[in-house]
This record gives sequence, structure tokens and C-alpha cells, in this order.
Amino acid sequence: MSLPIDAGLLAAHNERLRREVQADYDHLGAQLARRGIDLERVRAQVAAFGVAIPSWGVGTGGTRFARFPGPGEPRHVFDKLQDCGVIQQLARATPTVSLHIPWDQCSDWSELRGAAGALGLGFDAINSNTFSDQKGQAHSYKFGSLTHTDAATRAQAVEHNLECIEIGQAIGSKALTVWIGDGSNFPGQQHFRRAFERYLDSSRQIYAALPDDWRMMLEHKICEPAFYSTVIQDWGSSFMAASLLGPKAQCLVDLGHHAPNVNIELIVARLIAAGKLAGFHFNDSKYGDDDLDAGSVSPYRLFLVFNELVAAAHEGVAFDPAYMLDQSHNVTDPIESLMTSAVQVQRSFAQALLVDRAALDAAQEANDAMTATHLLKAAFQTDVTPLLQRVRLDAGGAVDPVAAYRASGYRARMAEARPAVAGGGGGIV
Amino acid sequence: MSLPIDAGLLAAHNERLRREVQADYDHLGAQLARRGIDLERVRAQVAAFGVAIPSWGVGTGGTRFARFPGPGEPRHVFDKLQDCGVIQQLARATPTVSLHIPWDQCSDWSELRGAAGALGLGFDAINSNTFSDQKGQAHSYKFGSLTHTDAATRAQAVEHNLECIEIGQAIGSKALTVWIGDGSNFPGQQHFRRAFERYLDSSRQIYAALPDDWRMMLEHKICEPAFYSTVIQDWGSSFMAASLLGPKAQCLVDLGHHAPNVNIELIVARLIAAGKLAGFHFNDSKYGDDDLDAGSVSPYRLFLVFNELVAAAHEGVAFDPAYMLDQSHNVTDPIESLMTSAVQVQRSFAQALLVDRAALDAAQEANDAMTATHLLKAAFQTDVTPLLQRVRLDAGGAVDPVAAYRASGYRARMAEARPAVAGGGGGIV
Amino acid sequence: MSLPIDAGLLAAHNERLRREVQADYDHLGAQLARRGIDLERVRAQVAAFGVAIPSWGVGTGGTRFARFPGPGEPRHVFDKLQDCGVIQQLARATPTVSLHIPWDQCSDWSELRGAAGALGLGFDAINSNTFSDQKGQAHSYKFGSLTHTDAATRAQAVEHNLECIEIGQAIGSKALTVWIGDGSNFPGQQHFRRAFERYLDSSRQIYAALPDDWRMMLEHKICEPAFYSTVIQDWGSSFMAASLLGPKAQCLVDLGHHAPNVNIELIVARLIAAGKLAGFHFNDSKYGDDDLDAGSVSPYRLFLVFNELVAAAHEGVAFDPAYMLDQSHNVTDPIESLMTSAVQVQRSFAQALLVDRAALDAAQEANDAMTATHLLKAAFQTDVTPLLQRVRLDAGGAVDPVAAYRASGYRARMAEARPAVAGGGGGIV
Amino acid sequence: MSLPIDAGLLAAHNERLRREVQADYDHLGAQLARRGIDLERVRAQVAAFGVAIPSWGVGTGGTRFARFPGPGEPRHVFDKLQDCGVIQQLARATPTVSLHIPWDQCSDWSELRGAAGALGLGFDAINSNTFSDQKGQAHSYKFGSLTHTDAATRAQAVEHNLECIEIGQAIGSKALTVWIGDGSNFPGQQHFRRAFERYLDSSRQIYAALPDDWRMMLEHKICEPAFYSTVIQDWGSSFMAASLLGPKAQCLVDLGHHAPNVNIELIVARLIAAGKLAGFHFNDSKYGDDDLDAGSVSPYRLFLVFNELVAAAHEGVAFDPAYMLDQSHNVTDPIESLMTSAVQVQRSFAQALLVDRAALDAAQEANDAMTATHLLKAAFQTDVTPLLQRVRLDAGGAVDPVAAYRASGYRARMAEARPAVAGGGGGIV
Repeated sequence: MSLPIDAGLLAAHNERLRREVQADYDHLGAQLARRGIDLERVRAQVAAFGVAIPSWGVGTGGTRFARFPGPGEPRHVFDKLQDCGVIQQLARATPTVSLHIPWDQCSDWSELRGAAGALGLGFDAINSNTFSDQKGQAHSYKFGSLTHTDAATRAQAVEHNLECIEIGQAIGSKALTVWIGDGSNFPGQQHFRRAFERYLDSSRQIYAALPDDWRMMLEHKICEPAFYSTVIQDWGSSFMAASLLGPKAQCLVDLGHHAPNVNIELIVARLIAAGKLAGFHFNDSKYGDDDLDAGSVSPYRLFLVFNELVAAAHEGVAFDPAYMLDQSHNVTDPIESLMTSAVQVQRSFAQALLVDRAALDAAQEANDAMTATHLLKAAFQTDVTPLLQRVRLDAGGAVDPVAAYRASGYRARMAEARPAVAGGGGGIV
Repeated sequence: MSLPIDAGLLAAHNERLRREVQADYDHLGAQLARRGIDLERVRAQVAAFGVAIPSWGVGTGGTRFARFPGPGEPRHVFDKLQDCGVIQQLARATPTVSLHIPWDQCSDWSELRGAAGALGLGFDAINSNTFSDQKGQAHSYKFGSLTHTDAATRAQAVEHNLECIEIGQAIGSKALTVWIGDGSNFPGQQHFRRAFERYLDSSRQIYAALPDDWRMMLEHKICEPAFYSTVIQDWGSSFMAASLLGPKAQCLVDLGHHAPNVNIELIVARLIAAGKLAGFHFNDSKYGDDDLDAGSVSPYRLFLVFNELVAAAHEGVAFDPAYMLDQSHNVTDPIESLMTSAVQVQRSFAQALLVDRAALDAAQEANDAMTATHLLKAAFQTDVTPLLQRVRLDAGGAVDPVAAYRASGYRARMAEARPAVAGGGGGIV
Repeated sequence: MSLPIDAGLLAAHNERLRREVQADYDHLGAQLARRGIDLERVRAQVAAFGVAIPSWGVGTGGTRFARFPGPGEPRHVFDKLQDCGVIQQLARATPTVSLHIPWDQCSDWSELRGAAGALGLGFDAINSNTFSDQKGQAHSYKFGSLTHTDAATRAQAVEHNLECIEIGQAIGSKALTVWIGDGSNFPGQQHFRRAFERYLDSSRQIYAALPDDWRMMLEHKICEPAFYSTVIQDWGSSFMAASLLGPKAQCLVDLGHHAPNVNIELIVARLIAAGKLAGFHFNDSKYGDDDLDAGSVSPYRLFLVFNELVAAAHEGVAFDPAYMLDQSHNVTDPIESLMTSAVQVQRSFAQALLVDRAALDAAQEANDAMTATHLLKAAFQTDVTPLLQRVRLDAGGAVDPVAAYRASGYRARMAEARPAVAGGGGGIV
Repeated sequence: MSLPIDAGLLAAHNERLRREVQADYDHLGAQLARRGIDLERVRAQVAAFGVAIPSWGVGTGGTRFARFPGPGEPRHVFDKLQDCGVIQQLARATPTVSLHIPWDQCSDWSELRGAAGALGLGFDAINSNTFSDQKGQAHSYKFGSLTHTDAATRAQAVEHNLECIEIGQAIGSKALTVWIGDGSNFPGQQHFRRAFERYLDSSRQIYAALPDDWRMMLEHKICEPAFYSTVIQDWGSSFMAASLLGPKAQCLVDLGHHAPNVNIELIVARLIAAGKLAGFHFNDSKYGDDDLDAGSVSPYRLFLVFNELVAAAHEGVAFDPAYMLDQSHNVTDPIESLMTSAVQVQRSFAQALLVDRAALDAAQEANDAMTATHLLKAAFQTDVTPLLQRVRLDAGGAVDPVAAYRASGYRARMAEARPAVAGGGGGIV
């Protein structure tokens, strides 16, 4: 199997750093042993962890004001897959890719599946798109899709989701993620209850077409593109809808889709309790749906989310959340951002594994807030970098993925291989 | 029946203004007739509308920094009732009072009921208090009440709620409002899922004691007094709990208990759809749970809430929301604030009745956002002051409640009759 | 002078409604007379009021997710001007247009000025654009413009602003509005103090080129397109920069560019006090820079802003704020939105003129919060619709601008006259 | 000098851990050496760092709903000083105490100064209080203090601040911190510009009384106790006031006093640039002015604040910020919270010292956002615990301050020595 980055270059990179990694790893092991933690056991869990790459994430993102593409932008799904291959080769934490239809439309899904396999990649959830119009589309989504007042438009949106399920089956997906932009910009524009009823009605048709081993992941969002109201505005509406649809419908949590100040880890706990946690779209945000790199602004919040997940697993709660990055890379090389973000997510998971659960239980039971919070902080403050480096080394990745990537000259090669697409976006103010 | 404000004074006040009210009312009627609206029909609906007064609202409120009491503060529940009597006599929109235990503890509920009746008042929902400790209390609520890790503390909190139900039965209430301050101030302090389980367990015991014709109203709040997490933090958790408890449990919406930017009228619509809307605590907020006077900062938002309620009633949805004011009057005479707020709530209801529902349905169906939103604005921009004045005149109230109140000298009389209580609060920073 | 909407159609529209308008106007006059207000005097002030139309506002807006254009979209600045002509002809509150360079680039400014004059329009502030790249541009603004670390890029951005001043002089503008998208998406990406210094350095060069009777209006924004930090993030930074630049530099307030909960009318008061209020970009927002129609969600907030302006003028403060709409019309006909928004702004101004300033002064001095706030509410609750209708009638506009516009068939004519531009935006996620 | 915690106990505690601390410290030194950082040099800087304790912080805090005091609450300023002595003895990062008048009123300041000296403590800024009324006060602050409409009330508030300066001189303070609760709860209640003028007028009188080597630190706050507007609502107003007052007036930043989402580190940078940064009140917040323990919710934000401070110092900017904790300890032992918070602040400072400034400058200059943000993360992810432990060991403190404190039995002794004060707060809703 020929991976995008030269194996020799990668080996040389690792060789230079291997001894330091081992020394740091050994010291970390000794420190953790004093705290009663077996680093080897943690390593096995971290090694098994993976987060999906969104196919659209490897292209440069933008805002309604402008998009500033970088060199070597991927031109189609095969280019995107190749970039994902680089990410997985170097960071070894992203074994799957999540496609978006119609952006990733392709004439031969079997060929695509083969190409992915050759890169060591599989496919995660498939994403439908009824928030923008495609050329030649019979009905516009300007005023909604699954919740449109017009039955034919709703039928078209349902039909698109059914097509996504079919594509997903062709490539080995096991879940459909449904995010809609439906909502309103003016008080009175939309009848709230009727729109929700139409959402349920459309979703039931999609749900009915789900294979038995699939999940339907409902993604809520407080605003944007609709700016007065959205139909699935928060986890409450998402939970209500998922409950009415049935056991295969669950709620997806995107970290940037909440009102200011909202305690996201608490929502995660509620959804776990209800058996309705579908999974995550990881990113970070300071102001809204900023789609910044995961953990780049609020790393402790990301850790606290994983703390809920690890606690639930520790207690034997049966659940299986899907992990995906969902970011907009406007000022960085998307490959660098995605590798770094995957490692950040992995870091949060690793740190959450270091929490002394028995001591935490005891402190919580005794209302010893100081000890309880210290136990979380002790885990978070632990520098697990050597652990993550070791996991990558073990798996054939790079000790320092960004450095190895830069050294490889991949982007410059792509800049030559992929002629620049004309301009991009902007003017939508 | 002898009411607190002199009947002659009131009559003279009204006489001076009656002619102008009638002229304005007639012109409003003519304007509305052109829009196809029968003002007489609207008047009947507005006349039947009432919002409960919280007994604690007639005392001056404060913040954790200080409380600045005014003259003539009520000393006990009978004083509070008298002040409520003034409010109802003049504004005629507040036929009921909502008590808070133990703040309104009283040795003879039958006497209290009689006193209320003499003032033309009844009793609305009763409120329990497990967010502060009372002298001689066996177990402290410092670390929680219904969700405390200690079973005895939970039992004590449950017991208090059962006592509230008993008191409520004695005075004719039909609902118990449960708001708890339980939550945490530190990540890790509280086990989210276990705390919620304990909440459910305690609440089930309270629920089991509810008379058949009672409701249990669950009140959520995003923060304060707990500042990292609360157990019933939003309508999602409230809805989840109410669903698990049973049909008599519903969700109460306080307008100040949400995250910034949240669309409250949309939550109202969701709860109506789910058959889980218990009712409201009306107030206004700019920054958080400010407990400002209803509609004093965001009158259009208040209108939009009523627009949902009137729409649902218009469509024949079966629901019966409880209406209560819940405000903190820090810089005004509480009686003036409560009268003004009751009228503001009544105004929003009246304006919502003016919306052309058929035209709105048509505009929504046609995605004519401009017409739809204009229909709401047309109702909101209508100055219904003469309608509200007329309703008060018809019911024996004052055309201008605040002016009549000021003219009556009631507050000065109370300042003499009720010796000032020492100092007040502060120092809790 | 031939205006876009048929004069006969307009006359007929008005004739049908003239009698009702007069009756309502007369009753309003009588009501206000009782409150000591001379409606004729108010009418004169309202008639003199105008708010500028942004040239880009007549095209359908969009989000980073999609843009859904409507029929008859303007193709160039002359088309835009024609649409602005319709708005002014019917609503008579928008005598000027604000251009955006390079979006409104044109080969003959004198011709454009003539075309505007024929429509009864002048030109307001001119807007520069250094937040997106134009074809053939030497240096990219991906990492900043006036604050870029590269001197050549900054020079290019400065040069563009100088060109805007020249164009503005050609068309009769008296102000340059500078909004930049400069900022950062990651902690550490930008050196905060150095970026601000570069902003000042670049701005000083622009300031130096300002004609004596011009103003430079600095527009701040908390986020977007940069999502971790922006260089002119709030009024504090804007004020600091304007102070350092000199008396011709002032601060522009866009109603959607603030952090959640911020009291905008208070900022307006501060800027008035400092002699640094440049003017406004009017719109409304619920979640962020939503660019919703002015007053569509928070009409009382818009009124409170005008209350500050009218109070300052009443007290003889010397200031001259520029008024402009700045909205994104995603789901409505932009012409309808702009007419309606202009009237909403005018309504807020008219209502603010009704506040009893002497009584308000007295109530504030006496700390009678209830009376003070009631005085504002009394003005806001007054339905000034007949006044606005009368002002339009007097000026030759339409009693009901949207109804007259719809009756005119203008949009359908434009749909034929202006071939649809291909697709639009989207895919920037 | 006899310190509160037994020296033998402390020595034994340290002895048990000394070897591990040294091993971890040595490994950290080796790791940092590889990154070109001299740990010894960092240690010297960290050892010199201190943050002041607020005297009121050693008592249990509360909310407007309730206060739940713990055992052994300090009864007066000497008790408070003793608790501060414990904090400093064990954590060795808090060499000064900040007093609050009249809460810390005392009959013999010289005696107090002596008591402090015996505990190894000095005094930081002194805080005035005009946000609550004291028994026997001639004029109430219900409607304001320095900005009150009544001149006599303003004079009284000014006089109180002058008294605070005198007290401060007696105990060796060099700064007066002025935070006022002045503002309004209703639109219209307060004339924004006049209130600000009165603020300036009163503040000028205080400023005039400042000794030459003193600073006046203006503290802004967006809301609470006033909930519609405050007079010094943000850093913009604070900066405007400080600029008008003169060079001894500067702006104090409390981390919980901002609107949601606001970038605080950016404000810090602006104030540094303007020479107007007075210093900090450290705490953490999730929803508002939560007064949570510093860094307990958002540790990376605290680090980013210190990153600005260290960067400015590195570049030779002349400034001297005051550091103080300002927290409300509602559910923890205040001594434990203050020790932990002081260490957290110290940790952030230490981590900021690890940032590779030269590499960061280069990355910023090259717009290499990924490298720039990675450099900050690399510093933040470094576990500096052994460094902090070593600094405490060197200074005679405890390796683990909370563990040593618990082992000492200090709180139990105080519970006996200090009879419980009756009840506490609550009822202010």
C-alpha cells in the first residue's frame, strides 16, 4: 500500500525523536504509577481511539464575506480522500472519512471505496445537504427543506436523504447525519408548531428507510443560516424529535451550535442518560458557530466533554458515540489543522482516562467540591504529549505530524498537481 | 367589602378621565373595525384575563450586594395580602396571589383565606423553598435539596414539598411550583447523571402526593445560585423530567432563566406542542435572571410569547397555562411595579388578540415573511391603552392605577402602620 | 423627472386611503394635544429625517451556507440605483445611497451622479472593502489589510481607501466608512498591540488624505470574519483609535456588532458625550451580526437608541450622526425590506420626539424610576402610523409603500429586464 | 515569628514528598532544556510573583438566595488576617491582603499592621464600599453614590473614599480601588450622560486627594446590582474616565465583569498599549459575575491573559499591574479555595513564561497561525506542577497546600475558637 508521504522521510523524522519520546514516556509512566495509573493500559485505549474527518474539511473554508483559498485545494472527492490519507498516515487518529452529498458526488462508489481502502481509510456517517440549492434542482430550499410548507419541496428533500442512505450503504457507512438550515428570519414568518410537525413527518419517511443497523443523527443549531428561529434549535427539540422518531434516531452535539454560556458537558450527560447521544461534531467556538479548531480556544471544555464520556463508559453505560471533526479552516493549511485537532481530541480523551474515578465518586458523594475538581484538574494538567507521540510511533505515524508534513513538501506538490480553481465566494454580505 | 383604597377617591379619579377614555376607545374601535376586528369581543377576552401576584413581590427586593428597603414594607403574609389587595383593586388584572413557604408561613390558613376573599383575591400555585436554610432545620441545603447525595436531606426536602401541598389544599391552590437551587460551582463537584436520577426519585415522591386535580410545575434555570451547572438547567431537562414523572408534571417558563439570545417564544411553542406547558413567571431581563419588570426592556418579546399562546388557543389546542409575575423590585415601590407589570402583561395579551390569524396563516403558507411579520407588528403597534383603561373602568379599577395609588397616600399610611424592620442584607459578595 | 413607479398608480393608491389617514391623524393630534405635544411640530421634524440606503442592500443577501437570489436582481450600480429610486419614491425617508467600492465600481461617476439626481437621490458615506480579494489584486487580504504584517499589503489597502475618497468626492460624499475584517482565528496568531499600532499607522495615512469637510467613520465589530479576535473589536478600541487619529475620525455604531446583552444605547450616550459618534448602521439582531431588518426583533431597543439622540439634540449637544441601513435580505424582496426598515427607523425617531423631556428630567432627578420609564413607554406605545402616513403623503410617497410596490408589478418587470445571474455562493462552510 | 500552622507538621508533610518533587523537577528541567528554556531562570521569576488576598474572601460567600456559612467563620479583620496568614504560610504566593472598608473597619490600624507583619503579610489596594448602606448613614445609596443626583449623597460617597485613602496610608497601601454599583434598572431611570459627568466630578475630588505615589483603580462591570445599565459598564467607559482623570487613574480588569463571549486578553492588550492597565481581580465565570475560583472553568483563558502580560514585560513595556483574587466561596472552605486559586494564577504565569517569544514573533510576522498557536499550547500543556512545588518548598510553604492544611486541623480549631454568627442572608430574591 503506497501512502502519500514518503516512508523514508517519515522514518527519519521519527528516528531523530524516538529516544526523547521514550524518555518522556517513561517518566510519565513513573509519575502516573505513583498516582496508581497504569500507563500501558491507558495507551491501549488511546491507540484504539479514532475521530472521523469531514471530507469538506480538507478544503479551505470561508465566511459570508470572503474565502481565501490556499494552494493545492482538492478538486473532487478523490483529491479530498488523498488529503485525508495524509492526515491519517501522519496522525493515526482519523481512520474514517465522513462524506457530504452532493459535494462528494461521484460516479463510481466502489472505486472510491477502493481508493479509501488503499489509504487505510473507511467511511463514517454520511451527511445530506438540503440547506443550499444545486443546479437544476426542481424546488428551492430558500424557505426550507424538510419543513417547507410545500409538500413537493419536502418530498424532494426526503428523497435526497434516501439517496444519501443508498450511497452510504455503498461505501459502508452506518449512519446518516441530518442537519437542516430550516428556520425563519422574522417573527411570524414560520408557524413554529407546524414547522416542527412537518419536520417530524419528513423525518419519519427517512427513518423508515434506514437499514436496521443504521442510526439517524439529528443535529441541532441555535441559529445560522436562519437568524430568528431554527426548527431544531437546541438539544431539547432534538431530543423531542429523536424520541418521537424511534430508537435509531439520536442527537448529535456540535460544540459550536449552542447559545452563549451553555454547559455543553451537561447536555452530553443528559443525552447519555436518555440513551440518545448520537455523537459529536468537534470544533471550538468563542462567539458562535465559529468552527475553530477543536480545543484551540477552550481545551478544558473539550476535556470536560470527554470526562462525561469516559465516566459513562467506566460505569458500564451502553453507548457508542460517533466522533467527527467539523471545522472551517480559513487561515491554516487544512491538513495541518485536521491533524492537530485530531490529536487535541485524542489528548482530551487520554486526559479523561487519567481521572481517578473512585476518588471522584467519593468526593462527589461527600460534597468535597475542592477535591472533586482537583481530580479533574490533575488529569487535565498532566502533559500526555509523550503518550500520544508513543501511540503514533507504535502505529507508524509521525512523532510530530505537522513538522513531518511540512518537511514532506506535500502541499507544494499538490499546488502543482491541482490547478487552482477560480476565485471563491465573497460578496455575500 | 372594604377595599384598601378609598372608593370615593377612586371614583373621582376615574370621573376626571372617563370622557377621554371613551373617546379614545371609540376611535380605537373604529380603527380596528376597518381591520375587521370587533373591539367588544376583544374586550371580553381581556376582561377575563388575570395574572397572579407573587406574595414576595410586594416587598422590596435586593441583590447579593445590598437591599434597600422602602417605607411601609409588609411584615408578614397578612400585610402582603393587603398590598396585593391594593394592586387588584386598582389594576383589576391580578385576581390571585401565589404564596411561598416558609416565607408566608401562617398559623391559621382559614383566616388567611378569609382575608384574601375579603380583598377579592384567591390563591394560585404554591411555591416550595429548598434553596435556603431555615432556623432549626435538621439538614442543610448547602449542597443540594431534592438532589442531595444524602438521603435524609432529600427526604427533608421532599417532606417540605408535601407540606406545601397540604397548605395549598387549605387555601385552594391547584398547583405546586418546584424550583431548586441545586447544582454545582466546580467541574466535577456533582455527578450530573446521578444528580438527575436523585431529582427524579425525589420528585416522584412529591408527584405521588399530588391531588388529582393538581399540577406540579417544574421550573428550570440556567444558573444562579449554582454557577457551573444546575440540575434542571433548561427546558430540555425540564421536559425530560416532566415526561418521566407523568401527565400532572409540566414545565414552567420564567422569562429570565435562559441562556443569552435564546428564543423563548420558540420554547413556548415546543412545550405547547408536547402538552407540557405549565405556565409562566413573567419578568424581563437584559443580562440574566435580572427579575426586571415584565416588558420593561423587551416588550416585543413579551408580545411574541403571547402570540404563541393566542395562536394555540385560536387553533383549539387544549392547554391552560398559569400566569404569574416574578420580579424583584429594587428601586421602585413594589405595588407600582406590580400594577404596571400586570397591565403590561395584559397589554401583550390584548395585542396578540389583534393579530389577523387567517392572514398570518396564509402568509406563512406562502412564505411571505414580510406580510407575516407585518401582521404581528401591526398588532403590536396598536396602542391598546384605551381598551385596557376601559376594562379597568368596567371592573371598578382605576383608569391610571399608579396615579390613583399615589393620590391615595397608601404608602405613607403603611409607613406609619408598619414599623421599619432593621437594616437589610448585603455583605454577601 | 420620471420615477420608476407609475405616478397614476401611486395617486390612486393614496386616494383610496387618504380620508382614513386624515381621520387617524386628527385623532392622534387630539390625543397628543392632551399630553401637551404639538403634532404639527413633530411632523416637520419627521419630514426632515432621512436614512441612507446601502447600495448592496438591494441585492439578495446570503450566508456562508447559501444564497438564494430572487427574480430581477440588480446587475450593476445603475440597477441598484434604480431600485433605490423605487424605495425613495414610495417611502420618502431614504434620500441618499451609500456606495461600496469595488462592488459599485463604475466608469463614469458623473453619469452616475446624474442618474441619482434624476431619481431624487444623493450619495452618503462611501465604503471601502479590504475584507475580500479582487481579481488581479497584487496582495491578498487573507491575513489582514490595514493591519497586515506585510507593509506592501497595508500600502495597497491604504491606497484603496484613498481611491474611495476620490470617488466619494466625485459623487458628493462627505464621509468614508472603514470596516476591516482584520483579526485572528487562533490564540497567538496575531500580536494584539502591534496589529493595533499598524491599524493606527495605516489609518493615519488615510486620515491625512481626508478633505477638510469629511469624516472618517470607524466601524467596530466583535467577531466575523475573524473568530478569535478582531482589531477594532468594540467601541473602546474604536474610541481609542478615533481619539488618536483626530477630530475628523469618529465611531460608527452597527447595531449587530456587539457582544450579547450589551447596552447599545449606553454606548451611544458615551460616544455623544465624547463628541465621537459618527453615526449608525441600522439593522436588528438576535444572535450576532444577523443583519435582520431594523427593529424587526427588538423595536424598543431601536427606540431607546433614538431616545438618546433626541435627548442630546434637545439639550443642544452639537452632533450630526449619519444614518444608514445595513441589512442582509435573505428571504424577502430587498426593496420591501428596505422601505419597511426605513419606516421603522423613522417611527422610532418620531416616537422619541414624543417623550416629555421636562417631565423625564424631573423624574430622573427625583429617582422616580417608575415615572421615568413610563414616560418612555408612553411615547413608544403611541401608534404614530398616521403621522408617518401623512408625512409620506405630503412628500408624494405612498400611504402603504409595500402595498403600492406590489401593485406596481415592478419586480416582475425587473425579472424580465434583468437576466438572472448564474447561481450564487454557498459551499463555504 | 509564630505562624498559624505548626512548623513540624509542615516539615513532615514536605519531607514525605521532597524526593518526588525533585525527580519531577529535574525531568521538567531536562525537557525544557531541550526547548531552550532555563528552568532555574523561570523559577526565580515565579518565586517573585504574588497575588493579593481580598480580606472578604476568607468568609463564606453567598448569593441573593442564600448564604450557607461554614464552621469557624472569621468574625473581624484580625480573624481574617489570621486566615490569610494560613494561606500565605502554605502556598507562599499571596504576600499581601486587600482590605474593604467599612467591612474591615478597625480601631487601631497600627496594631493591625503589626499583626499582619507578624504573619509575613503586607497590604495591597484598599477598597471603598458605596454600594450598600451602613447603619446610621445619613444618605442612602439606593439610587447611586458617586453618581447620585443628590449632591449631599455624592459628597458623602466622596468623603468615604477619602477616608479609605487615609486608612490605606496608615497600613501602607498604594492604591484605592473604586467599584460602584451605580446604574439603573429601567430604561429612562438614569440620564446616561449626566450620570457619567457626575461620576467624573466626584472622582476628580477623590483623585485630588490621592498621594503622589498612589493609583486610583477604576473597576468596570456590565451589570449587577444594576440590571439595565451601569455607569462604568465596560473598559471603554473605564478608559474614558481614567483618561479624563489623569495618569494616576487606571483601569482594573475583573475577569467576570464582561459581556458574554468578550475577549478579555484583548482588552488587557489594549489597556497595556494605552498605559492604563491598573491590574486584575482574578476569578472565573461561566455565566456572569459568578466569582468562581480563578481558572476553575477556563484555565486557558487565564493563561492567555498572562501571555499578554509576559509578552509586554518581555518587550520592555513599563507597567506594573496589581494582582488580586476576587472570588465568592460558597461551597468550599475559603482557605482551600484561595490557596488553590493563588497557585492556579501562579501556574498561568509560569506557563506564560515558557512561551518561546522569538519563535512566536516570527510565526506572527509570517502569519503562520498554526505554529503561533502551537507555541502557546506547548507552554500551556507543560505540567509545571513540580516547578510550583519546588518554589513553595524553597520558600518554606507546603508541597501540597490543601493536604497540609487539612492535616493541620486548623478549621476545626477555628470552629471552636470562633462562635458561629447567627444565620445568614437569604430572602433577598
